[in-house]
Amino acid sequence: MRVRALWFRDGALQLVDQRELPSRMVVRSLHRVREVADAIRTMMVRGAPAIGVAAAYGMVLAHEEGGISAERAATTLRATRPTAHDLAVGVEAVRSAWVAGEDPLAAADRYRAQIVEECHRIGVAGAPLLAKAHRVLTHCNAGALATVEWGTALAPIRVARERGADLFVWVDETRPLLQGARLTAWELARERIPHAVIVDNAAGAFMRSGEVDAVIVGADRIARNGDFANKIGTYEKAVVAHENGIPFYVAAPWSTFDPRRASGGSIPVEERSEDEVLDLTGRRVAPRASHARNPAFDVTPSRYVSAFVTPLGVVPPRALARTLARAPAA
Amino acid sequence: MRVRALWFRDGALQLVDQRELPSRMVVRSLHRVREVADAIRTMMVRGAPAIGVAAAYGMVLAHEEGGISAERAATTLRATRPTAHDLAVGVEAVRSAWVAGEDPLAAADRYRAQIVEECHRIGVAGAPLLAKAHRVLTHCNAGALATVEWGTALAPIRVARERGADLFVWVDETRPLLQGARLTAWELARERIPHAVIVDNAAGAFMRSGEVDAVIVGADRIARNGDFANKIGTYEKAVVAHENGIPFYVAAPWSTFDPRRASGGSIPVEERSEDEVLDLTGRRVAPRASHARNPAFDVTPSRYVSAFVTPLGVVPPRALARTLARAPAA
Repeated sequence: MRVRALWFRDGALQLVDQRELPSRMVVRSLHRVREVADAIRTMMVRGAPAIGVAAAYGMVLAHEEGGISAERAATTLRATRPTAHDLAVGVEAVRSAWVAGEDPLAAADRYRAQIVEECHRIGVAGAPLLAKAHRVLTHCNAGALATVEWGTALAPIRVARERGADLFVWVDETRPLLQGARLTAWELARERIPHAVIVDNAAGAFMRSGEVDAVIVGADRIARNGDFANKIGTYEKAVVAHENGIPFYVAAPWSTFDPRRASGGSIPVEERSEDEVLDLTGRRVAPRASHARNPAFDVTPSRYVSAFVTPLGVVPPRALARTLARAPAA
Repeated sequence: MRVRALWFRDGALQLVDQRELPSRMVVRSLHRVREVADAIRTMMVRGAPAIGVAAAYGMVLAHEEGGISAERAATTLRATRPTAHDLAVGVEAVRSAWVAGEDPLAAADRYRAQIVEECHRIGVAGAPLLAKAHRVLTHCNAGALATVEWGTALAPIRVARERGADLFVWVDETRPLLQGARLTAWELARERIPHAVIVDNAAGAFMRSGEVDAVIVGADRIARNGDFANKIGTYEKAVVAHENGIPFYVAAPWSTFDPRRASGGSIPVEERSEDEVLDLTGRRVAPRASHARNPAFDVTPSRYVSAFVTPLGVVPPRALARTLARAPAA
């Protein structure tokens, strides 16, 4: 009954179409690397660790299709979305096996298993933080759907609940694409974890009124100094949490850490179509003459982060470099 | 061609139905105080100064209907929404005339004219601030639709534009009811003022990237010390503006100032139906099992306010008490 975002079966990548949730559970079977690239670009699958695993299986499909080089398949998949570091890591895990003459499917399966295991370790590491917290706010979806299983931000919530913690989750709806209201709420509702959806605007008010004990989010890319990119709005939540003395945690597997990037200033931020802002559930809400800007991510400086929740434990920003030196090469 | 939110004609209050904008311009004729109360409650008319004026005319209609006392009509209208102070002020302007045997319609017309004049003065006072600013962010709709004419936050933008300032407006869409994307964008588009709609989550990112020179908002109730209630999300924008050294202005006529309230802690904050969060354009987005919390306002401490833009000029929070002593009794 555990939620899974994707799996490989019968020579195809099986993907939960996340655009259809929560109203319909639709599983798509993808047989070609081109289909996987489209699925990532259109956000049929989203969430940095999950798109990394999807791209790894995309490499497997490219290898089975034939007629395309490992390099070209890797370039195609990496070009789908610019911000998540995991995408490049997942592609590389299979590309390197492919060019070394190893079995691409075994490499993708290993990569997938590693992400799932790291997410479970994140859950075990972070659970004590949240068990004390009681009322936890999260932004976007950093759950099983975003990571294959367990989640990043949701993993400590799941493990704390399994251990009997009395948790309540504030779910930022997360405009424009509502991954909070649609996906995080869906994961929590399935597991009967108490929660309330709020508009993103209300997070600060609940922080100020003392109704939020901790904030935990995932990430799309984390620089060496701890600056990190995540879903648009994360920066505001981090600043307001800091202003109110509320701990702010960032949970991520190693694939999200970008060791070649010294700080957040150079992280590429995707800007998506203005229609995601101007049209709601297919209906235009703003005047025809109006335009929109739609950055999909923002970058939060590490000074707003209380700690990173990693597979090696809970790490304050100042200790991040030391921990990364002990982590498996990403 | 100037936007007006409401006017009185042929013995009826004529109201632009703001729920229908921007797709349709529908003017409703209200003949009974009950209809005015419903129009305020359902947000057919919204914006603190505008609901004050609508309620003033609601008192006129009650007087013409007969069979209802001034007190009972006042109580009915005041009970519609709890947060905007202007509602009580508008009601009182006509109630006192009514019980003194004066003409209620003349009192309502005077109240309306006073609000319009104060908003214009706000525009003149605030225009120099924004003419220097160039890129201005606003939250919710504090335009003509919220105030009858001119607006509060939009009045300085309009006056600065008339004087030839080169302004660009960032429009927070303002979930849950999208008054920014629907109403502010509509007012700006009509007057060809350059603007871009953004999800509320993106305001902080644009502040941090140096693309916002000033923030200006309206208010629903301002305490003596300058703490103020405004549309949910205002608090987050104020904190993030402060963190980035961006001036944050609050524009309001005297009717919004509540001289009996020492600070913001006791301002009543309306909580509205969870359906406003969970249903978008009539379609349910969250799982059926999920619930929502929906506070319509938040309270921002005065320490985040650079200045109030009032009919008597631009006033820093520390000078507010002195200015209020010179203002007409609210």
